[in-house]
Amino acid sequence: MRLLVINPNISDDVTALIRAEAQRSASPGTELTVLTAPFGVAYIETRMEAIVGAYATLQLAAEHAEGHDAVVVAAFGDAGADGIRELLPIPVVGMTQAALASAHLLGRRFSIVAISRRIAAWYRETVHAYGFTDRMASLRFLDRPLSGPGSVQQEHRDRLLELCDACVREDGAEVIVLAGAPLAGLARSVAGQIAVPVVDGVSSAIRHAESLVALQPGAATAGSYAMPPAKPHRGLPPALARRLDAPR
Amino acid sequence: MRLLVINPNISDDVTALIRAEAQRSASPGTELTVLTAPFGVAYIETRMEAIVGAYATLQLAAEHAEGHDAVVVAAFGDAGADGIRELLPIPVVGMTQAALASAHLLGRRFSIVAISRRIAAWYRETVHAYGFTDRMASLRFLDRPLSGPGSVQQEHRDRLLELCDACVREDGAEVIVLAGAPLAGLARSVAGQIAVPVVDGVSSAIRHAESLVALQPGAATAGSYAMPPAKPHRGLPPALARRLDAPR
Amino acid sequence: MRLLVINPNISDDVTALIRAEAQRSASPGTELTVLTAPFGVAYIETRMEAIVGAYATLQLAAEHAEGHDAVVVAAFGDAGADGIRELLPIPVVGMTQAALASAHLLGRRFSIVAISRRIAAWYRETVHAYGFTDRMASLRFLDRPLSGPGSVQQEHRDRLLELCDACVREDGAEVIVLAGAPLAGLARSVAGQIAVPVVDGVSSAIRHAESLVALQPGAATAGSYAMPPAKPHRGLPPALARRLDAPR
Amino acid sequence: MRLLVINPNISDDVTALIRAEAQRSASPGTELTVLTAPFGVAYIETRMEAIVGAYATLQLAAEHAEGHDAVVVAAFGDAGADGIRELLPIPVVGMTQAALASAHLLGRRFSIVAISRRIAAWYRETVHAYGFTDRMASLRFLDRPLSGPGSVQQEHRDRLLELCDACVREDGAEVIVLAGAPLAGLARSVAGQIAVPVVDGVSSAIRHAESLVALQPGAATAGSYAMPPAKPHRGLPPALARRLDAPR
Amino acid sequence: MRLLVINPNISDDVTALIRAEAQRSASPGTELTVLTAPFGVAYIETRMEAIVGAYATLQLAAEHAEGHDAVVVAAFGDAGADGIRELLPIPVVGMTQAALASAHLLGRRFSIVAISRRIAAWYRETVHAYGFTDRMASLRFLDRPLSGPGSVQQEHRDRLLELCDACVREDGAEVIVLAGAPLAGLARSVAGQIAVPVVDGVSSAIRHAESLVALQPGAATAGSYAMPPAKPHRGLPPALARRLDAPR
Amino acid sequence: MRLLVINPNISDDVTALIRAEAQRSASPGTELTVLTAPFGVAYIETRMEAIVGAYATLQLAAEHAEGHDAVVVAAFGDAGADGIRELLPIPVVGMTQAALASAHLLGRRFSIVAISRRIAAWYRETVHAYGFTDRMASLRFLDRPLSGPGSVQQEHRDRLLELCDACVREDGAEVIVLAGAPLAGLARSVAGQIAVPVVDGVSSAIRHAESLVALQPGAATAGSYAMPPAKPHRGLPPALARRLDAPR
Repeated sequence: MRLLVINPNISDDVTALIRAEAQRSASPGTELTVLTAPFGVAYIETRMEAIVGAYATLQLAAEHAEGHDAVVVAAFGDAGADGIRELLPIPVVGMTQAALASAHLLGRRFSIVAISRRIAAWYRETVHAYGFTDRMASLRFLDRPLSGPGSVQQEHRDRLLELCDACVREDGAEVIVLAGAPLAGLARSVAGQIAVPVVDGVSSAIRHAESLVALQPGAATAGSYAMPPAKPHRGLPPALARRLDAPR
Repeated sequence: MRLLVINPNISDDVTALIRAEAQRSASPGTELTVLTAPFGVAYIETRMEAIVGAYATLQLAAEHAEGHDAVVVAAFGDAGADGIRELLPIPVVGMTQAALASAHLLGRRFSIVAISRRIAAWYRETVHAYGFTDRMASLRFLDRPLSGPGSVQQEHRDRLLELCDACVREDGAEVIVLAGAPLAGLARSVAGQIAVPVVDGVSSAIRHAESLVALQPGAATAGSYAMPPAKPHRGLPPALARRLDAPR
Repeated sequence: MRLLVINPNISDDVTALIRAEAQRSASPGTELTVLTAPFGVAYIETRMEAIVGAYATLQLAAEHAEGHDAVVVAAFGDAGADGIRELLPIPVVGMTQAALASAHLLGRRFSIVAISRRIAAWYRETVHAYGFTDRMASLRFLDRPLSGPGSVQQEHRDRLLELCDACVREDGAEVIVLAGAPLAGLARSVAGQIAVPVVDGVSSAIRHAESLVALQPGAATAGSYAMPPAKPHRGLPPALARRLDAPR
Repeated sequence: MRLLVINPNISDDVTALIRAEAQRSASPGTELTVLTAPFGVAYIETRMEAIVGAYATLQLAAEHAEGHDAVVVAAFGDAGADGIRELLPIPVVGMTQAALASAHLLGRRFSIVAISRRIAAWYRETVHAYGFTDRMASLRFLDRPLSGPGSVQQEHRDRLLELCDACVREDGAEVIVLAGAPLAGLARSVAGQIAVPVVDGVSSAIRHAESLVALQPGAATAGSYAMPPAKPHRGLPPALARRLDAPR
Repeated sequence: MRLLVINPNISDDVTALIRAEAQRSASPGTELTVLTAPFGVAYIETRMEAIVGAYATLQLAAEHAEGHDAVVVAAFGDAGADGIRELLPIPVVGMTQAALASAHLLGRRFSIVAISRRIAAWYRETVHAYGFTDRMASLRFLDRPLSGPGSVQQEHRDRLLELCDACVREDGAEVIVLAGAPLAGLARSVAGQIAVPVVDGVSSAIRHAESLVALQPGAATAGSYAMPPAKPHRGLPPALARRLDAPR
Repeated sequence: MRLLVINPNISDDVTALIRAEAQRSASPGTELTVLTAPFGVAYIETRMEAIVGAYATLQLAAEHAEGHDAVVVAAFGDAGADGIRELLPIPVVGMTQAALASAHLLGRRFSIVAISRRIAAWYRETVHAYGFTDRMASLRFLDRPLSGPGSVQQEHRDRLLELCDACVREDGAEVIVLAGAPLAGLARSVAGQIAVPVVDGVSSAIRHAESLVALQPGAATAGSYAMPPAKPHRGLPPALARRLDAPR
């Protein structure tokens, strides 16, 4: 099985975190292609940045999906995932979507722990879009300057654990979601230090993508996830244009 | 990996359907123990029947969980699953819960196709309990006398396909959930005949249980899924009593 | 009028509290049969315990309903109530259900005051199942070790009043629900000490059960509260089996 | 016990229907004062008409509440009920509020059957205000010219039964609410002809008002149902002015 | 363009605030008629007071609408607005409704800052009626004795700014709504001192009323905002009676 | 006042419709700059197409906003609007957002009439994102092949009117939203032929943008609509990069 894993951001150190956790999580026999966005920002925290990340991810997916069995969008917020799902006949899994699926399988009410104050609104809206707001016990976040996305989990590990603990004790969280690719792998390393199950988005996305491939649910040929209708277009990247022009 | 799969009903022919689909879905190396409820009804369609099924399933889980890595409750409605999750330190996955996770990963709005009019309320309430009501496009059901749960999918295959089709065309379903253990395996056999992805509860539950085992999210030692507090009890089956009396 | 009142737990002292409050609340001419679960736990705080309590309550109802005009399930969380409603052609009222009805009649937003941290999730899910989440201003709870359910209201009376007060002042509660059979009768004894109306689950259930009997709304012969369809069963308690086999 | 029952409309024939059903429903020993609005319209179907009815009802309540134990607002839509609850230290029950309480006690999903197309929006908004929208399976209505509110149930009885039947069969209603004072008493006369329990607003309101009096939940001295704060006013009817000026 | 602006309260000093802010906000060429309720209370804080204000506003609208292009109800809570909309073929805009429209256009989550504790429930219910509860980040309020509605913004300006600040920093508000006619104009005077956009209800209502007049969406001749059906009435103010008797 | 109006699609004929309706709607003194996306598709119907449109719109806004007082995103679905709002210190109004504001000001429940089956999911999700789902009575759509977006309203005018009529009669719509830039101006031309108010997205957006400019609510300097935090980026269009690098 081959999975295409896309970091919608330009940060190579975050891509490294994603790759490492993806490799630790993948089943034997799963091969991973891990890509970094060629343009965009270091780390998506806002709606504006998500627009850029979505377009970059869409292009990478159009260009590189060939030969893969599923696509993973490895940024919380799932920039572009829902659109790519229309474009490709294979499963597409976003990191928030995957984390929500895991949290749903582990308990009723989850809390999200995130790396910055600014990112909270974007996460909240993503959770709302998936209809999971009523299951979110709380959203807590680091409120400190970050030296960079790639080193958050080392530098702020203790504060992150405190936030997790507060979610359990004060907010009634039954599951914790450590949100954002910069925290990829942290759940694994804090095993046993948090009193409820902890969800990692990257490993969840890898595993759920594998499951969808195995379950063979079929591709959409009608409805809102079928290939978009043929229509005039202009100025699109060649790989995207080719897909839109393909016979259907 | 060893999974304990429990049919909360007394119907051996449905257990056979469950076992067959579970085996087809499981990863290499996964071993399955498949049990049938020793008491109860042929097929849970109502809240009253679910009370019986939940208690039977709880007992089986308490008695047989030892040596397994996860439990699958193989009836739509997830009779007992949420309670068993408190009792055991391993993942517990219900069939509705699993099907909803798959549907969530495949699209925004799903429809459920069920085998009887009577079962609709019970399913609707289960979906509500998980907070997925707003993502349900519709719930359609067979409205014909059934000769037995084990033969529904053969006898009513054409009508079931018509219902699926109506969900897509009239209700805007982006994913179809074929609901209930009696339909286990049907999704696989109608592949390519339905215009959107189709979800099977049994195979989803097997795969998602495997994923939770692999992801190692940790067990709850606090919050509402930790082991229930020690307290007086009376008249409980020995296996259940033993677990409640275990030191914690 | 004869009411069958079932304590889904094994605690005789709580049964005594229930009986006392039920007798104080009942209209002249109402006769009460008050039963204690023959098996189960001392006090339901979790989903797992509720599974046991539901099955015990279902059995008692099947066995003893004859000759009664309505059934009251006297535990917050309403273990088994919804299933018993399918089984019997008479009104069935749960304690949460009744308390919510009273709260709804007295104001828009209510708070629940409960006796333990662990019980909060189970109550929250019960309120959600009835669709009353948006009317709940808050849920506060004692967070202290209890010597036993039968003595909570004496031992923790002051703290309980403080919690009620906080619900009014800080959470905007317009009504307080004192939740759980161990608090039966407390509302009556704190009359005048809380600044908003206070609801007791047991007395509410008795009164509302009487009302349903008087209103004669008719029994369900179709829909999801009609008698479950005839089907094979095995190993059920005789009284339950007889009802399932009755002609309909 | 003495109940003040107010018809917020000017229609004496509807008052007669209300009085007759109220007397049939009341417990022995309950005395009823039944009043008709001195100004307003024949039958509230719209928000504008409800404004008039609310003010008329508020005046009657202020003037006549003395010596009564509870107030019943006998029009679906509960014109003025929530405001009167602030003004008086006794329970106040609206007809929709009471019908919803009964429906909640009898099942999960109810349908409303109403007497005109125009009235649907007003009922829908009232149900929304109480937070019961998610429990409403459907709202169906007569769509024919009415000769007058007092004769609707005789003239359109067969069509009303057809609507009830459609709610059960097509919409999944578990309870039917026959809505509006012009249908007062109809539930009683169609007993046994509808396959699920049927709720009458007037008898529900009488019984629930009696229950609240018996339960003695206490009056609000704080929060949003306490007496409104003292402040300048002008031009109010004397009985209302007197209450606002009373020391508190 | 001529706008009829109605203060549903008897307070002339609040009317002066409304008039001043309305004049500052209106487009060139817009003429304003500003009226004060002839009966009622100084300032609506409760549901009971809103019933009085609604009836007074309805009468003023019926009497004075002639020759105007739209009506503005200048009290938060929109007393009577929805009913007047049925009565008149011109746009009717309430102050809450307008503030919510502005907040919706400026961001996702807004907070309301109000002038008293008591008013919170009434505002909360108004927001719920419009379906905006999920977009409300918080509702904060002054909790101090007021010398009068006309001087709140001068006397409590600093505390109001602190509340706004807390909404942004602690509650995640993206927009602040300064609620209530007594705060009319405050938004303008604190420009630049609050870190997110600030909405004023009066100026929003004036502008949105002008927009609706300009957009010419047409009047309702069917549905729930069409003129109420002709029917008997009694004791209504002449202007209201005339409108109800007008041919349609 | 100068408004920047962006068509997120490449279709010049739709831009012409937008410009014409925008000019008819704008107040005297308002100047319009109307731009067409330099790349993208002819008409956004899907999430994938919206990703492309959002990025194109973001670029145009970054490049051309200078000297304008507000931005209008002239495609239903509001591709990019929420992100642009973060980037610019001036009001940004999307066409769906504006139409929802108008509908909210005109009544409680609206229906959307759209030009294709495929577009329904995208619109539904946009309405959900704004939290307006509960106020949507229905969404109906043309289900016929279109020769092109620029001629829909001429070719299918009768069918569109039939859909509007069905929304009013069958779905209880109190307001109709004619959705999509290809229908720009239709509301105006069918004035008087539909029984409830009709909302046009383009004219609503123009008017509401003007209002926000006039109301001067202030720009966000904190919270989720403040300028995104400074961080590394790569490969962005120069105008966008310049804004991200600007001192703040």
